[in-house]
Amino acid sequence: MTTVKHADGAAVDEKAAAKAEKHNNGGKALKHALPHRLKDSNLKITLDKATYKKEYGALAAELGRLQRVALERKIPVLLVFEGWDAAGKGDSINRLVSNWDMRGVRVVPTAKPTDEESMRPFLWRFWRGIPARGQIGVFDRSWYYPMLEARVMDGMEESDWKQRIDTVRRFEQALADDGTVLVKFFVHISRKTQAKRFEAWEGDRAFAWKVTRADWKRHKKFKKFEAAADELLQATHSDAAPWVVVPGTDRRFRRLSVMRVVVDALRGALEPSNGQKAAPVIRLAKGSNPIDKMDLKVTLPEEKYDKQVGPLQDELRRLQHLCYTERLGVVIAFEGSDAAGKGGAIRRLLQPLDPRGYTVVPIAAPQGEEKTHHYLWRFWRQLPKAGHWSIFDRTWYGRVLVERCEGFAKPEEWQRAYQEIRDFEAHLAEERYVLVKFWLQIDKDEQLRRFKARQGDPDKQWKITDEDWRNREKWDAYNQAVGDMVRLTSTPQSPWTLVEADDKLWARVKILKTVSQAVIKGLSQVKD
Amino acid sequence: MTTVKHADGAAVDEKAAAKAEKHNNGGKALKHALPHRLKDSNLKITLDKATYKKEYGALAAELGRLQRVALERKIPVLLVFEGWDAAGKGDSINRLVSNWDMRGVRVVPTAKPTDEESMRPFLWRFWRGIPARGQIGVFDRSWYYPMLEARVMDGMEESDWKQRIDTVRRFEQALADDGTVLVKFFVHISRKTQAKRFEAWEGDRAFAWKVTRADWKRHKKFKKFEAAADELLQATHSDAAPWVVVPGTDRRFRRLSVMRVVVDALRGALEPSNGQKAAPVIRLAKGSNPIDKMDLKVTLPEEKYDKQVGPLQDELRRLQHLCYTERLGVVIAFEGSDAAGKGGAIRRLLQPLDPRGYTVVPIAAPQGEEKTHHYLWRFWRQLPKAGHWSIFDRTWYGRVLVERCEGFAKPEEWQRAYQEIRDFEAHLAEERYVLVKFWLQIDKDEQLRRFKARQGDPDKQWKITDEDWRNREKWDAYNQAVGDMVRLTSTPQSPWTLVEADDKLWARVKILKTVSQAVIKGLSQVKD
Repeated sequence: MTTVKHADGAAVDEKAAAKAEKHNNGGKALKHALPHRLKDSNLKITLDKATYKKEYGALAAELGRLQRVALERKIPVLLVFEGWDAAGKGDSINRLVSNWDMRGVRVVPTAKPTDEESMRPFLWRFWRGIPARGQIGVFDRSWYYPMLEARVMDGMEESDWKQRIDTVRRFEQALADDGTVLVKFFVHISRKTQAKRFEAWEGDRAFAWKVTRADWKRHKKFKKFEAAADELLQATHSDAAPWVVVPGTDRRFRRLSVMRVVVDALRGALEPSNGQKAAPVIRLAKGSNPIDKMDLKVTLPEEKYDKQVGPLQDELRRLQHLCYTERLGVVIAFEGSDAAGKGGAIRRLLQPLDPRGYTVVPIAAPQGEEKTHHYLWRFWRQLPKAGHWSIFDRTWYGRVLVERCEGFAKPEEWQRAYQEIRDFEAHLAEERYVLVKFWLQIDKDEQLRRFKARQGDPDKQWKITDEDWRNREKWDAYNQAVGDMVRLTSTPQSPWTLVEADDKLWARVKILKTVSQAVIKGLSQVKD
Repeated sequence: MTTVKHADGAAVDEKAAAKAEKHNNGGKALKHALPHRLKDSNLKITLDKATYKKEYGALAAELGRLQRVALERKIPVLLVFEGWDAAGKGDSINRLVSNWDMRGVRVVPTAKPTDEESMRPFLWRFWRGIPARGQIGVFDRSWYYPMLEARVMDGMEESDWKQRIDTVRRFEQALADDGTVLVKFFVHISRKTQAKRFEAWEGDRAFAWKVTRADWKRHKKFKKFEAAADELLQATHSDAAPWVVVPGTDRRFRRLSVMRVVVDALRGALEPSNGQKAAPVIRLAKGSNPIDKMDLKVTLPEEKYDKQVGPLQDELRRLQHLCYTERLGVVIAFEGSDAAGKGGAIRRLLQPLDPRGYTVVPIAAPQGEEKTHHYLWRFWRQLPKAGHWSIFDRTWYGRVLVERCEGFAKPEEWQRAYQEIRDFEAHLAEERYVLVKFWLQIDKDEQLRRFKARQGDPDKQWKITDEDWRNREKWDAYNQAVGDMVRLTSTPQSPWTLVEADDKLWARVKILKTVSQAVIKGLSQVKD
C-alpha cells in the first residue's frame, strides 16, 4: 500500500514520483530526531499508509496512558504549535488531542488579542493560558507568531527583537523549572505548497473564508518569514523548550511525527531522572544586610505631616487621572514586618484615588487553581490593565520570604525565584508599567509593643493571630530573607524602597512621595 | 454654620436662598427613608456643614465595624450605583469605600463591554463581578444602565424591555436568596443641574474630557430617560434588592445619605432575623418518575452504528463551522449515572470537532474562589463566547443531585435551585445560546457489571473510586433526585434528553443526533 503521491494530492509526474519514493523513508525517519531548524527540514518526506496504520494505534494508546501518568504525577504539559498558514497545525492538534481525555486538555487559540488582552503586558495572555499541574495545554500559535509578524510585517527593530527573544526564553525557562514539559512544534511547508493549498481552499465554498487578503500578503513575504523564523527557532531552542520542525507536506508523516515526539517527550519527563538536577547556584549576597543599616529612629512631626499629606494626596489624584489618559499601568507592591502599618499606609495612599481606577489585591496562601499553577500565575492574572493601578498587599515575594522561612518552597525553588522575579519585573518595565516596591520595617521591640496594643484593643484584636507570634519567633530568619530579597531583586528599573516604619507619619509620607515620583517618571517616559 | 448655598456652588438670590432654607431639613431627613422613585425625590434638599461633620465620623466608624462583621459572617454585600451623568456617583462611591479596608472591597466599573464581554450573554459580566462571601462589591453602573440606554436611545421594544426586567429581577433574587445584601442607589439630579455641571467641567481643562458629545445627546433626552428610569425603578424595587433614590444636588446630603443607607442595610442583615425565613414551597412533582419509564433494553447493532456514526460526525463538524461564522454559542451538558459512559460519549462527540472551537469543562467539587461565591458563579464563568461550544462533564445540576443527596446543600437551597436553574437557562435561551442537556441512565445491574469490569482492568481501575460504590448504595435517593430534576427543569427551550445508556452504541448515536438537531434548530433561529 505504499503511496508515492504527494500529500497535497497534486498529480506528480513519473520523475517526481521516483524522487518522492526516495524520500518515503518516513517509517525510518520517525525513529530519528526531527531537526529544530527549517533549513534542515526535509519537506519531501512522506509516509506510506501501511506504516501509518501500523504505528498509529500504538502511539494513540501510549498517549492515553501517558496523560494519565502526567495527571497522577501532577506534571503540567505545554505543547506549542507554530507554523505557516495551511501547513496543517489545526489538523495536527486535532489528531493529537483526540487521543486524550479532553477534561484534562485545554486548546488555547491565540488569535488577535482581545481588548482585555491588548491592554496588558505582552506575556499576560500566555501566562493566563498555561496549564495547571497534571493538565495539558495546547497553544494554537503562541508568543512566537506576534513576534514574527512584528519583525517581518511591521519592521520591529533589532534591539526590540533581541529583547523579546530574551524575554520568551526566560518565560519558557521558568515554566520548565517548575516542571512543565514543554515542546514547540513548527509545522513547515514550502511556499509553493502553501500557494497550492490556499488556491484549493479558495476553490471550495466551505473553506474560502479561511484565506484572506492578509494571508496572501504574508505569503508574498514567505522567504522573509522563513529567514526570521529560522533565526527565532535557533535563538529559542533549548533543553527546557526544544523546537521540533515537522514537515507538513505529507499529512500522515506530519500527524505521526507530532504524536511520536509528544510520546517521547512525555516518556522522557516521566523517567526517573539520571541523578538529581544540580540546584542552581545562587549567589546569596555577602556582606551587610541593608535592613540592619536602616535608621528606624527617623520621625516626622505631626504638624509637618499635616502640611505635607494634603498636597501629596492631591498630586496623586491628579497623577491617577493622567495615568488613565496616558494608559500607563501602575503596580504598587507592599511587603513589610507584621504590624509595620501596611494597612494604614495603603489606606492613605488610596484615600485620594478614584476607586474605579485601582484594585487592591490582598495576597494570602494560594487556594484552588492558584495552588495548581506556577506560583507567579496568580500575580500575572492580577496585573492592572493599561491606565489602571493595582496595589498588592503582600506579593510574589512571598516565595522568598514566608515560603522560604517556613519551608513551603524547596531551597532550589526559592533560590531560583530571585531570577524569576527579576524577569517578571523586567517584563513589566519593558511594557512601560510603573512598579513601586515597599518594604516597611519596624524595630523588634516596636513590634512587640504593637502586638500587645492590638491584643488590648477589642477593635484591633482581629488583626493579630497566633501566626504573627510564631513568625516573630523567627525574626532573624525573616530578617536574613528580607536582606537577601532586597539585595537580589533591587534593579535600576524596579528598586526597593525601604520604609522606616516605627514612625507611621514618616512612613506614610515617604510612601506617598515615592509613588508620586515613580509615576511622574513613568509618565515622562510614556511621552518620549 | 448652617449654609443655604446650593451644592453646585451657583450663586443664589435671596428668594431662592429662603426657599432652599426651607428644604434644609437634611439632618432630619437623614433619619427617614429615602424614596425609591425619582418623582418622589426632593432635589432641593441640603445638609448643613455642622450636621455633616457631626454625623460623618460616627457613620464612618460604624461602616468599618460592619465590614468586619460581614467578613466574619461571610456575608456578601453588593452595592449598585446608578444615576445621571455628573450626579456624583463617583464621589459617593469614593467617600463610602474610603471607610473600608479595601482588601475586602472591589469596585467594578461597568464601562462599555470589552469584546470578551460582548461575546457573552448579557448578564455574564455582572455575574463575573459579584462579590465573594464576606466581600463588598460596588458596581459603578450596572445591568440597568445598558437597559436604559437601549430603551431610550435604541428604541428597545416593549416585550424585550419587560423580559429583561424579569431577567434582572430573578438575577437579583438569586443573589439575595444566597444571602447577598443588595442595595441599589440611584443618584438623582435635575436636568438643569446636569447642564450646569457639564458646563463647569467643560470650562476646566482637567475635566473637559469627562463631557462628551454622547453625554450632551443623552442630556437632550433627559425627560425620556427620567420616565424610563422611573418605570424601571418601580418594576425592580423589591425587598431583595431595594432602590434608594439619593438626591445629588447637595454633596453633603448625598454622601451622608449613602453612608447611612448602607449602615442601615448592613445592620438589618446582621440582626438576628425574626423567625426562620419560610422555606420556599417547592412542588416536587407527583406521579411517576420519568427515569423509571425509560426502556433501557434498546440497542443499536454495530453495523448500523458504523453506518450512522460517520455521517453524523461529518455533519457536526460542518455545524461547528457554521456556529462559528454565525456566532452561535453552544452549551452541552452531560449528567448521568456513574459508569453510564459519559466519557466515551463525549469523546465521540468531540472527535469530529475542531478543538480550537470548543472547551470541555470538567466539574468536580468547588475549590477556592468557586467555594466562596454563589454556586452558579463558576458555571457562568465557563460559558462559551458566541460561536464557541462548551461541553460540561457534570454541571450546575450537581446542586439538585449530589449536593441534595449528600446533604451538602440545605433543603431550602437545593429546593430553590430548580427555579434558579430555570432562570439561568432561560437567559441562555434569550441570548440565543443552544443548550442541550443529557441524562445518561443505566440499569442498576448493568452498573454493577461495569464497576466490576473496571476493577478487573488495570487500564480502567483509575475510573472507579470508593465514592462510586458509596453513591451506588444511595441508588434510590439519586433516582428520586434525577426524576425531580427532569420534571422540574425540562422546559420547551431547554428540555432534557434522557439517554438509554445500557447499550453504548445506541447512546452515542442518540447523543450525536440530538446535538445535531438542536444546533440546526439554533442556526435556523439565528437566521430569522
